Amino acid sequence: MPFSILPKEYGFFDFFDQHAVKCLEGAKLLQDMIGNIAEAEFFAKRLKDVEHEGDEITHRTVETLHKTFITPLDREEIHQLISRMDDVLDLIDAGGQRVFLYGIKETTAEAKELAEVLVKATHQVKIAVTGLRTLKDPTNVLTACVEINRLENEADSVLRRAMARLFRESTDPIELIRWKDVYEFLEGSSDRCEDVANIVEGIVLEHA
Amino acid sequence: MPFSILPKEYGFFDFFDQHAVKCLEGAKLLQDMIGNIAEAEFFAKRLKDVEHEGDEITHRTVETLHKTFITPLDREEIHQLISRMDDVLDLIDAGGQRVFLYGIKETTAEAKELAEVLVKATHQVKIAVTGLRTLKDPTNVLTACVEINRLENEADSVLRRAMARLFRESTDPIELIRWKDVYEFLEGSSDRCEDVANIVEGIVLEHA
Amino acid sequence: MPFSILPKEYGFFDFFDQHAVKCLEGAKLLQDMIGNIAEAEFFAKRLKDVEHEGDEITHRTVETLHKTFITPLDREEIHQLISRMDDVLDLIDAGGQRVFLYGIKETTAEAKELAEVLVKATHQVKIAVTGLRTLKDPTNVLTACVEINRLENEADSVLRRAMARLFRESTDPIELIRWKDVYEFLEGSSDRCEDVANIVEGIVLEHA
Repeated sequence: MPFSILPKEYGFFDFFDQHAVKCLEGAKLLQDMIGNIAEAEFFAKRLKDVEHEGDEITHRTVETLHKTFITPLDREEIHQLISRMDDVLDLIDAGGQRVFLYGIKETTAEAKELAEVLVKATHQVKIAVTGLRTLKDPTNVLTACVEINRLENEADSVLRRAMARLFRESTDPIELIRWKDVYEFLEGSSDRCEDVANIVEGIVLEHA
Repeated sequence: MPFSILPKEYGFFDFFDQHAVKCLEGAKLLQDMIGNIAEAEFFAKRLKDVEHEGDEITHRTVETLHKTFITPLDREEIHQLISRMDDVLDLIDAGGQRVFLYGIKETTAEAKELAEVLVKATHQVKIAVTGLRTLKDPTNVLTACVEINRLENEADSVLRRAMARLFRESTDPIELIRWKDVYEFLEGSSDRCEDVANIVEGIVLEHA
Repeated sequence: MPFSILPKEYGFFDFFDQHAVKCLEGAKLLQDMIGNIAEAEFFAKRLKDVEHEGDEITHRTVETLHKTFITPLDREEIHQLISRMDDVLDLIDAGGQRVFLYGIKETTAEAKELAEVLVKATHQVKIAVTGLRTLKDPTNVLTACVEINRLENEADSVLRRAMARLFRESTDPIELIRWKDVYEFLEGSSDRCEDVANIVEGIVLEHA
């Protein structure tokens, strides 16, 4: 391709794809950690690495944005999308670090459920974001966004059940503090996936 | 009016009005819940319905925004305003859900005070937002914004008193966790009203 | 200078400088409070005053922004920068108020470390923001931003150590709640300094 007037255009879609891979990777590590609490330190370290890799992609996206004159989406849309994706991974990492730092020894059924929903939600984020390349047929993108919304409702429902049980059954206040925090980070991560879906839907509507 | 060049223009003001009604309704439900803790489950369900209705209005606003070429306010202003109003209702709902999920059995004087300030603040939000239709005479709008700021200071002052008493007098750590969280959601909701007031003041200044 | 086509242009840089001074002042008051817990009430009052002074500067910046036709930076950049600086001071104040309201009686080594890192970070924010006046030589600005990022990593590392010790050694759950919250506010304040650095870096890149 010797002549290119808009050489960097599709680079942004590559960045989105790469970051979505990191979000899914982070969610899977958190799920593995919650299924193997005894190995929490090992998974916390790997998760922190993935979060740094996500930061790096975000940083390069913003830098490229400032250097690019003609962008395939509105500048603000690109900035919002990568920022909200970064929020997803930040929260996944924050939750995972707390599982380790709080010295949690045993897992709970609700933590496993929340982690599973989160893995599904980040998988749908990957589908939605990858679909942005071909906006002329946005069916897959919108289906993924609807599914992310459904998953967030599911996460919210698990969180409510988890919290009600925690406050009903806990006798150790420090154990309650540990799980209350971790549950909120787990559900919050799915909630951040919904923010990404909202940005993506906005982009689809704008370019329909 | 047989001819309309900008047919959708005033629809945005209708959305703002409708959402403000939901915010006030939510605040009143939360106040009723706090005054009737034994009925918390009933009020929590109604509050969740109101929150979903607010979500629906927000979603239609954003969708309409993407489909409208000429808007009565800057696109960014419309998006910011409805998003910040949605944050108010989200936080009111989150606080109410916790009163129920945490299994709170008895109310406190400070919770009643915070709920009352919140009802007043959402009432002023309604006045401010409704006044945006007639920007040529923004006196009422700005008076409401000043009042929202005063109410947020009042909420902050009640919160400080409530927290100081909680940490001074509590002997049951789990009860302290319950109320600390609920107080923060209650005061946070008034704080979000102030964010709405800031957006509204910006719109008034921009169109003065 | 009898003729001025853009009379208000440099006023924005004055506002940034003034707010940065308040952020640094707030961080130093918080550090003093943590070193003199018995005087917490005195420092909490002074900190609240400084926070109000910061609010006032933010308010005047936004008001001026709405009245100014030609701005030295993008309007959005000015709004983002002053808002993120205000978030720094808000969080410093919120942390300080909690030290007082929670009735904390004794300090910890980690709180002192976090306060020291925060003073350094707000000092670098001041250097970065002041440097925005002379964007043709942004070396000092970018060096300060890199240093803010390094300090935030340091704060994060102290927080992790502090949290791990808190959950490992605490026997009094209410004391754990107190310090968990205060540590998070202290580290969060350094985190907000990084948000300011990101905005500043974006401005430098945009005007390079």
